[in-house]
Amino acid sequence: MKNDLAPFFSPKGVAIIGASTDPNKLSHGILENMKRYGFEGMIYPVNPKAEEILDLRVYPDVASVPDPVELAVVVLPAPITPAVMQACGERGIKAVTIISGGFREVGKQGVALEAECRQIAQSYGMRVIGPNCVGTMDLFTGLNTTFIEGIPAKGPIGFLSQSGAVCGGVVDYIADKGIGFSHIASLGNEMDVDETDMIAFFGDHPQVKVIAAYVEGIQDGQKFIDVASRISREKPIVLLKAGRTEAGAKAVSSHTGSLAGSYSAYQAAFEQAGVIEVDTIHDLFNIAWSLSCQPLPNGNKVVILTNSGGPAALASDALASNGFELAEISTEKQTMLAEKLNPSAQTQNPVDMLGGAAPEEFAHGLSTLSDEPDVDVFIPMLVPQSLVNPADVARAIIDNTKDSTKTILACMVGERSLNEARAVFHQNQIPMSIFPEVPGRVLGAMARYQAWLDEIDTNSFKFDRVDRNAVSQMLDASATNTLGEAETRPLLAAYGFPLVSGRVAQDVDDAIAIADDLGYPVVIKIVSPQILHKSDMGGIALDIKSPEVVRTSIIEMTQRIKSTAPDSEIDGFLVQKMAPEGLEVIIGMRRDPTFGPLMMFGLGGVYVELFKDVGFGIAPLSPGRAYQMVESTRAGRLLKGFRGSPVYDEKAVVQAIGRLSQLALDHPEISEVEINPLLVLPDEQGALALDARMILSDA
Amino acid sequence: MKNDLAPFFSPKGVAIIGASTDPNKLSHGILENMKRYGFEGMIYPVNPKAEEILDLRVYPDVASVPDPVELAVVVLPAPITPAVMQACGERGIKAVTIISGGFREVGKQGVALEAECRQIAQSYGMRVIGPNCVGTMDLFTGLNTTFIEGIPAKGPIGFLSQSGAVCGGVVDYIADKGIGFSHIASLGNEMDVDETDMIAFFGDHPQVKVIAAYVEGIQDGQKFIDVASRISREKPIVLLKAGRTEAGAKAVSSHTGSLAGSYSAYQAAFEQAGVIEVDTIHDLFNIAWSLSCQPLPNGNKVVILTNSGGPAALASDALASNGFELAEISTEKQTMLAEKLNPSAQTQNPVDMLGGAAPEEFAHGLSTLSDEPDVDVFIPMLVPQSLVNPADVARAIIDNTKDSTKTILACMVGERSLNEARAVFHQNQIPMSIFPEVPGRVLGAMARYQAWLDEIDTNSFKFDRVDRNAVSQMLDASATNTLGEAETRPLLAAYGFPLVSGRVAQDVDDAIAIADDLGYPVVIKIVSPQILHKSDMGGIALDIKSPEVVRTSIIEMTQRIKSTAPDSEIDGFLVQKMAPEGLEVIIGMRRDPTFGPLMMFGLGGVYVELFKDVGFGIAPLSPGRAYQMVESTRAGRLLKGFRGSPVYDEKAVVQAIGRLSQLALDHPEISEVEINPLLVLPDEQGALALDARMILSDA
Repeated sequence: MKNDLAPFFSPKGVAIIGASTDPNKLSHGILENMKRYGFEGMIYPVNPKAEEILDLRVYPDVASVPDPVELAVVVLPAPITPAVMQACGERGIKAVTIISGGFREVGKQGVALEAECRQIAQSYGMRVIGPNCVGTMDLFTGLNTTFIEGIPAKGPIGFLSQSGAVCGGVVDYIADKGIGFSHIASLGNEMDVDETDMIAFFGDHPQVKVIAAYVEGIQDGQKFIDVASRISREKPIVLLKAGRTEAGAKAVSSHTGSLAGSYSAYQAAFEQAGVIEVDTIHDLFNIAWSLSCQPLPNGNKVVILTNSGGPAALASDALASNGFELAEISTEKQTMLAEKLNPSAQTQNPVDMLGGAAPEEFAHGLSTLSDEPDVDVFIPMLVPQSLVNPADVARAIIDNTKDSTKTILACMVGERSLNEARAVFHQNQIPMSIFPEVPGRVLGAMARYQAWLDEIDTNSFKFDRVDRNAVSQMLDASATNTLGEAETRPLLAAYGFPLVSGRVAQDVDDAIAIADDLGYPVVIKIVSPQILHKSDMGGIALDIKSPEVVRTSIIEMTQRIKSTAPDSEIDGFLVQKMAPEGLEVIIGMRRDPTFGPLMMFGLGGVYVELFKDVGFGIAPLSPGRAYQMVESTRAGRLLKGFRGSPVYDEKAVVQAIGRLSQLALDHPEISEVEINPLLVLPDEQGALALDARMILSDA
Repeated sequence: MKNDLAPFFSPKGVAIIGASTDPNKLSHGILENMKRYGFEGMIYPVNPKAEEILDLRVYPDVASVPDPVELAVVVLPAPITPAVMQACGERGIKAVTIISGGFREVGKQGVALEAECRQIAQSYGMRVIGPNCVGTMDLFTGLNTTFIEGIPAKGPIGFLSQSGAVCGGVVDYIADKGIGFSHIASLGNEMDVDETDMIAFFGDHPQVKVIAAYVEGIQDGQKFIDVASRISREKPIVLLKAGRTEAGAKAVSSHTGSLAGSYSAYQAAFEQAGVIEVDTIHDLFNIAWSLSCQPLPNGNKVVILTNSGGPAALASDALASNGFELAEISTEKQTMLAEKLNPSAQTQNPVDMLGGAAPEEFAHGLSTLSDEPDVDVFIPMLVPQSLVNPADVARAIIDNTKDSTKTILACMVGERSLNEARAVFHQNQIPMSIFPEVPGRVLGAMARYQAWLDEIDTNSFKFDRVDRNAVSQMLDASATNTLGEAETRPLLAAYGFPLVSGRVAQDVDDAIAIADDLGYPVVIKIVSPQILHKSDMGGIALDIKSPEVVRTSIIEMTQRIKSTAPDSEIDGFLVQKMAPEGLEVIIGMRRDPTFGPLMMFGLGGVYVELFKDVGFGIAPLSPGRAYQMVESTRAGRLLKGFRGSPVYDEKAVVQAIGRLSQLALDHPEISEVEINPLLVLPDEQGALALDARMILSDA
């Protein structure tokens, strides 16, 4: 479907189907909002029992609504909605917003109703927003199909939300703050138009500079990554995800009935697509607003200009936690600063101009430092003082930074005396926060986004010499869904994985022959479909140095298995060359219901579980992204040589992750695969898969 | 000095020394505030050049101020402050607040002035707040010696701040929110009255129920821990620390000139003293306010009653992140809920009563669930809707929870339409937040405090069989400040540490004799004052199984050391029994400038540095606290048997930490000591110090 969502925001005419004459009904509120904010298109209330509402002519049914009509807003009980949809289709309306609830979110019957509506929409080529939503606002056309009280300022943020209540709460919270929005879209159950469609629409819309999103779940993970990656190159996407914990996900699922992918997969997808994930509603709009009106910082050096040391210290903590530093101010500039500041002022950074600092002092500080080359960000801070007008300070800050290419983030600590100052700042594209930790958090988000933009290597892994057909045949031929090491090795070999050399022996003599051929020392492992965790069952013998020990090891192992797991069939003994010294890591893939192949990297042994130190990525992956996966972990630091340990072959790990991602993409029937351990050898010597297993899907 | 701070808040008379006739001066603002809020004591402006200010009789000097006068507020340039102090002392005034800056914070000259003032104060037995502060407020007596515009509501929070600006910003932020304060105290440079004195005063004050503190540094760490531990048993102390990062600490130090202890030590001290540390100003007051008006939860089971699923999902995430769970609601209660709610309402937890939920539905939900035994907390949530008055919802919530013993935390998402609702809630002792993540954060803080209150074992370690004198003598006799393993072993032995057995040999024959005596296998380590990191220099040989190998090992080691570190003196060879299998951990002590002996526990090897997985504590320690130190780390989970590994002797680790803390307390000349590794054996088999070193102070 093409992205034809414009009628939801700038239709020439809108039919409000189910408009009530009763001012205590929500549908009446919608009509009021449609009239209140300067919408220039036609408004047609539809209600068989009324003739006029709010001075608007009322039509008895959809069929009788005259041209132009491009959008229908349905506010009627769920059971009659299919009939209304049908009527809209017949009338030639291509966009329908269903406000009403009572669909998928209430269970089986609702699911069926929703399916019926979807089918009608498809048959007429209609796009549908909702059901179970609060509609859309366009702050430029004045369209407002919601019953929310009030609207925010007009501006650059396109906001989409999977919760109508979050739209309402946000408007209530933001309305007086001068933070500007272009669109607000409540998507409800996403029967048709989903969050990714809306991101794509905002991405192409000239009035949207930054996209903000409240998301509970993604409908199609791979589509989301594709679209969001493309849009993020042009416009930042700032996103708040609900359902990050198990309890939150359960709350979401009882709310929307959707099946959740794992939060690790969501996080990996967001990172990969350049989406700026935030933790709170407060951050969502502070960060979106700052991105819309300030340039990204050129580097991480900050100057704080303040009238108070305490809040500057709190701000400094937040800067450091987000990878930013206080810039060194040159002695020369410090001398210049001192000339017009209080004699007790602190001219080092944070520049503390003391409690009484007036607008002129902020002006002097900013103009003096404006041409310092090693400063990327200015944070002017004020705690309101009875003798200084905060709005005048705001004006001085604006006048002295308007030609600046540096990032300016203002902070004034307080609330009641700062409304005018905030209005002045926000009209002039300088974001103002009231808490000292906010600028650091905003800058951290900006820096993460910049780092993503700087990543050039965006092509996915593509290995030519892989034998896809061979793997397909082996998988088709597999008698079981649970493949142990012996079965998994040939699959990995076909995709060019470096394996420790070895072969399966049927008996002792066979094993001795293989060992003689490989050269000692060797390792022997049990091959049994019932035994996945070989070492737990005594099914591994290490560092065998002679044919005699091969013999005794196999005899002892067979006895052990017969007593510990008497029901296991023994299919043979895997004889492998004893591996050299190296660092043991784990790489793996688990197929996520939302995003598909979720790739994993972590340290071997108990540490991966003990420290939850795992890097995630979604296939397809670029090599750059695979490096990030590895380097986001502490294990990645070990690979680079930590405290005297050798430097290991990180590239070989990245290549192995790439090969595994290709295997997963080529063969959707693989639902899990794990190479554990992958032995990483010293730099340029490669990596060896020492053990592996695989789980296939039931289908 | 006894805690005689009452005159700073409830004096019978106050002299304002330096009161100006000019309404643009801060001292004039102070007089205005003294008159404005109903203070019933006498107010005496002192100014030789005026006769009347704001209808108050002005006195030419302190000597001429009549009785009663118990507090002097000095607002004059720093250089004349000593003379004024002298005059106050002569006049018999026992409490002086110095508002003026220009003291320690401006450098050497200021330090001298401050010292002079302190001496005068001591000679007259005066208590001093400041200099460089904004004074004090008492919301009950109406005293207000600040020039801050506005005051907060009257209530239970005693707030102390080391930043005057933070006081001003907080009042501006909080004034319209109905969060009630008893006292506000700005402490400035803490020339005399410090943060701990003020905590002690608030602790004993009947109007203070919760103490909130903004702190940049603690003057006397051990005094703080003593006082705060005592007060925390009665009243929660909620604290925001600035200078948590290096950059923040530098900002604090340039602001106050104080030398910072490490943040790890601060965190350990706060945990030990039951102090509830928070990250932001916003949390400081949300949590303090909630603690002051709601009971601590009896458990971690929460019910969310909401009119909107999205915000409930965000709240659920925050609950889970803070250790709380959504309670299961019984089928019976769900049926009862459904009777009066919207038919599409969700009766499972979160109970989603849908957008239009009215006061009656909140009332029904709360009254229905009020007697559920397995519910500890209710979170009623509302997103404002045009047809429902939030204040009416607030009243319904209050009416239906007023006899409840459960914890009630309200959340209404928005801002502009919620002022009345917040006022209603806050007058009725139910805290209301506007962001869904706040209740979870508040509950997390409450639970941490409750866990501290539940800790009964508060007596410090005390080992009787330690030879304190022997250690004193050995330390006195030490020729160097850097003690290697050989020198540290006897010190540890005197404090009853279990050491791996071994002795120092002078030559090969001696070593063989010791090895024969200990039994093989043995380990040999170089003893040299120049070599602290023995393994890096090839100074360790492991697993030696015969006298011949003892001989060749020592010869080879000597040759290696002669080539790698030719200037090292070789004092001998430590021959030790080869240790059994176990888990290697590190325990240590570093003397913190603020808090004294900072005890550390972590995993051995590279992992402690790689994962920064360290538990800290301040000696003296209780055994319970030492267990917490250990169990706060991932290493602690390994000790308890993780994924099939054995259970190790955690008690032996705790005992070793205790012995080390006693050694550190008994011998202040030890500035650092580290046992690395401490080998922990399987449960009930103890732990052995395998290597150790110590650094003594220069004094």
